[in-house]
Amino acid sequence: MASSTPSSSATSSNAGADPNTTNLRPTTYDTWCGVAHGCTRKLGLKICDLLPAKNGEEQTVQFLLEVVDILLNYVRKTFDRSTKVLDFHHPHQLLEGMEGFNLELSDHPESLEQILVDCRDTLKYGVRTGHPRFFNQLSTGLDIIGLAGEWLTSTANTNMFTYEIAPVFVLMEQITLKKMREIVGWSSKDGDGIFSPGGAISNMYSIMAARYKFFPEVKTKGMAAVPKLVLFTSEHSHYSIKKAGSALGFGTDNVILIKCNERGKIIPADLEAKILDAKQKGFVPLYVNATAGTTVYGAFDPIQEIADICEKYNLWLHVDAAWGGGLLMSRKHRHKLSGIERANSVTWNPHKMMGVLLQCSAILVKEKGILQGCNQMCAGYLFQPDKQYDVSYDTGDKAIQCGRHVDIFKFWLMWKAKGTVGFENQINKCLELAEYLYAKIKNREEFEMVFDGEPEHTNVCFWYIPQSLRGIPDSPERREKLHRVAPKIKALMMESGTTMVGYQPQGDKANFFRMVISNPAATQSDIDFLIEEIERLGQDL
Amino acid sequence: MASSTPSSSATSSNAGADPNTTNLRPTTYDTWCGVAHGCTRKLGLKICDLLPAKNGEEQTVQFLLEVVDILLNYVRKTFDRSTKVLDFHHPHQLLEGMEGFNLELSDHPESLEQILVDCRDTLKYGVRTGHPRFFNQLSTGLDIIGLAGEWLTSTANTNMFTYEIAPVFVLMEQITLKKMREIVGWSSKDGDGIFSPGGAISNMYSIMAARYKFFPEVKTKGMAAVPKLVLFTSEHSHYSIKKAGSALGFGTDNVILIKCNERGKIIPADLEAKILDAKQKGFVPLYVNATAGTTVYGAFDPIQEIADICEKYNLWLHVDAAWGGGLLMSRKHRHKLSGIERANSVTWNPHKMMGVLLQCSAILVKEKGILQGCNQMCAGYLFQPDKQYDVSYDTGDKAIQCGRHVDIFKFWLMWKAKGTVGFENQINKCLELAEYLYAKIKNREEFEMVFDGEPEHTNVCFWYIPQSLRGIPDSPERREKLHRVAPKIKALMMESGTTMVGYQPQGDKANFFRMVISNPAATQSDIDFLIEEIERLGQDL
Repeated sequence: MASSTPSSSATSSNAGADPNTTNLRPTTYDTWCGVAHGCTRKLGLKICDLLPAKNGEEQTVQFLLEVVDILLNYVRKTFDRSTKVLDFHHPHQLLEGMEGFNLELSDHPESLEQILVDCRDTLKYGVRTGHPRFFNQLSTGLDIIGLAGEWLTSTANTNMFTYEIAPVFVLMEQITLKKMREIVGWSSKDGDGIFSPGGAISNMYSIMAARYKFFPEVKTKGMAAVPKLVLFTSEHSHYSIKKAGSALGFGTDNVILIKCNERGKIIPADLEAKILDAKQKGFVPLYVNATAGTTVYGAFDPIQEIADICEKYNLWLHVDAAWGGGLLMSRKHRHKLSGIERANSVTWNPHKMMGVLLQCSAILVKEKGILQGCNQMCAGYLFQPDKQYDVSYDTGDKAIQCGRHVDIFKFWLMWKAKGTVGFENQINKCLELAEYLYAKIKNREEFEMVFDGEPEHTNVCFWYIPQSLRGIPDSPERREKLHRVAPKIKALMMESGTTMVGYQPQGDKANFFRMVISNPAATQSDIDFLIEEIERLGQDL
Repeated sequence: MASSTPSSSATSSNAGADPNTTNLRPTTYDTWCGVAHGCTRKLGLKICDLLPAKNGEEQTVQFLLEVVDILLNYVRKTFDRSTKVLDFHHPHQLLEGMEGFNLELSDHPESLEQILVDCRDTLKYGVRTGHPRFFNQLSTGLDIIGLAGEWLTSTANTNMFTYEIAPVFVLMEQITLKKMREIVGWSSKDGDGIFSPGGAISNMYSIMAARYKFFPEVKTKGMAAVPKLVLFTSEHSHYSIKKAGSALGFGTDNVILIKCNERGKIIPADLEAKILDAKQKGFVPLYVNATAGTTVYGAFDPIQEIADICEKYNLWLHVDAAWGGGLLMSRKHRHKLSGIERANSVTWNPHKMMGVLLQCSAILVKEKGILQGCNQMCAGYLFQPDKQYDVSYDTGDKAIQCGRHVDIFKFWLMWKAKGTVGFENQINKCLELAEYLYAKIKNREEFEMVFDGEPEHTNVCFWYIPQSLRGIPDSPERREKLHRVAPKIKALMMESGTTMVGYQPQGDKANFFRMVISNPAATQSDIDFLIEEIERLGQDL
């Protein structure tokens, strides 16, 4: 058990910290937290000087303002292209303690001065996901209104399970979900939904809802009481469908993968063939997941054709629009999700394409009452029927969680500040940047596109071809060499800290870069920078 | 679709807002967000004036400082006993719009002025869960260090799935989980764990881990390939065990409820009898959940005796210490969880008894590799094996989630600031307050205890007996009247907004109050206040 003694933490040097900038001065003595701190008092204020300490108000405000000062500096730097995206260190380096940044926990308290240093160090060695040149994930950017919303959410520190303790947030969730369902295209009478901790859990909800709709006895009797059910999803779909299939007791073997065309879209004929094949083998097809915006290619499955097949065979249609859902906000691009209104359920993550801070994911269900029927257990200590208000607003029992984080407020506040049109413009802009990137590299010999044609989402997938591999025909040997190029460039990129973009293999395709743009702060110059950086780092490979 | 026009939002009156306090002045014009706002420009700054707008830095800082000012006021009031805990309104009242507080979303953006008003209103109509007189939930309080930690977390806005984008947070999680496992009493070589979105999901993980340990084929083949498995938990245990049983495909009928004694503790003989009964009926017992700190009574199941039975029949032992886990930090109280080191898995929610902000829940598993084996799907686009760093730090694939919120930082920072001893003292203090409450009311004719004996946790369960029911012997009629007392008092309490405490029935017992104390800001005077308030509101019933 590593224990940082008071003296060692007081003397730890830190480049980012200037002890003279602090306004914290000890004034009161209080032991609400019960820690005997005579021995460390000389090092400055401790947590016991903050609220709820008697007269702790001023110290609390001072301390929080010091923290905010650190955060505002970070926000400024995040948008400043002259700063790095990250300052990379290996795990063992951080664990050994960088310039006094000690990650180990101790029996004894640190001073507030040291806590401020810890905050600075935590940000210093992290990754600026809001930086205009961070393209590594589907969730990027740092929306200032969303940030304000999340600060408020943590300050309110409440729980979504009942109206009783989250009246405003519960109503905001209801209003926002209704709006999202309208945008999906469901009638205003229809529908239900809930914000869940991410797209994987939202997808899990969709499978549970489907199973309960067709076999409600599964709730009490389990999978042993129902036929051998199978689920269908494409080979390019998100791995959370398989994860959920495993968790919920279907088994991954019963999550049947449908073939995709060269653009990563489901081939409807293969879906129908596999449904028939499963039926013939004695399985009962239950559920089809169509993806609107696949993770790697950004492909949109042909929802209309899939919906036709689902109707024909009476299957639940789920649309995983975790990544592509944002395009529903754009009059220009929403046609790519045509048919989504025929789905029985939809996953849509505002924390991806809409730039909402993590986490913010919605599962929308067309038929009212299914989530409640599927999940409710009527815990008497939370969902008392004899409350003084309309208890239909106590939405917690339709969740698989008990306590549930308030994910709605930041999203609601952003919607207020941008309006629907603001989201539309932000999304259109990101898609224009993807088109810009595609146009820029598609005909250059240094680059090779993974698939032909304009991007439908902001995903642009490409290989960088180093000098040594240009003009050489495809062969296993060349593919093997090419496979090592993206990881090498990525490693150099992280060491230099200038930008970040993801790579991966897909099927039999060697490692390639997957560019995605979801940060409204990104501009053409940032795209230019990324391409130049890849060329700079990769030229000698 | 309700649409708040710019003029209506600009003229909306709001008691809490003083437009003169703002420093926001429009200076730049930028269209990064693409919203044409000529028509609303006259009303002040819009989101487009903030970063990433050119020269938006100053405005961004000003705006965020305005938000912080609102939040600091809220923090001050939270600890001020002269303020109310809540200002209750019915759903329809809030939906109709309180003094211009319009919850509906619009196509068009609001001004930043209005956004600040929205922030004030959101807090105004919410519930102060950090107020020293809020006793309604297991999670209460507003820890200032935790708050700072959560503000930083939202500013960093990253995701736990890979070391690549959350290097510091991933290491903090690893270090903290190791520390928690040591405190449980497992050897340092043992163990694994993950922070999950709440105790219900942590409990779900435990059942998945148990199932995978004994029947790894379930991952690929599903529940159809395994025997008819049954789970055991007490009738007083948390409803999430049943929820998980339903979700994971066991069915709630196969979650067998064990009888409890009058203190709410599992009767081991009943557990053994039901295990034998299930085996005789052809079921395969898999898993026993023992609760350390039940939700209503705060009871600790006898873990040693349950562990003996689990060993005898080779069952997975899970300890749901979501609520009671905090007591492990106290040398005085940890004996109540004696035997927890024999568990195969443990749920422990620092966001309950340790006062960490929501959400913060850990699932700890004794055997290394089970979480990974159970859940990993090896998504190529996230968990590339050919990264430049040690990829064993990419922990995302052992989660059922893909993206995962950073729940660790606030907890880690609080541990730094308090030290282990700080948590110990804080927890001891809450337990002393529960003893104080118990001693205060146990022999008074206005109160009747739901069960005899000193509280083991901070739960104190009691009926308030109004004048009209005192001295009257038990009868169905009296019970029916008594059943209506707590809801009536609670309704009056919420209308007056002075304090909050929960109530519920349990088994055949009429509605009673469940007092819980987890807020270090609470004092004896707050306990006194609660009791006086119940008497004041209930005297005429």
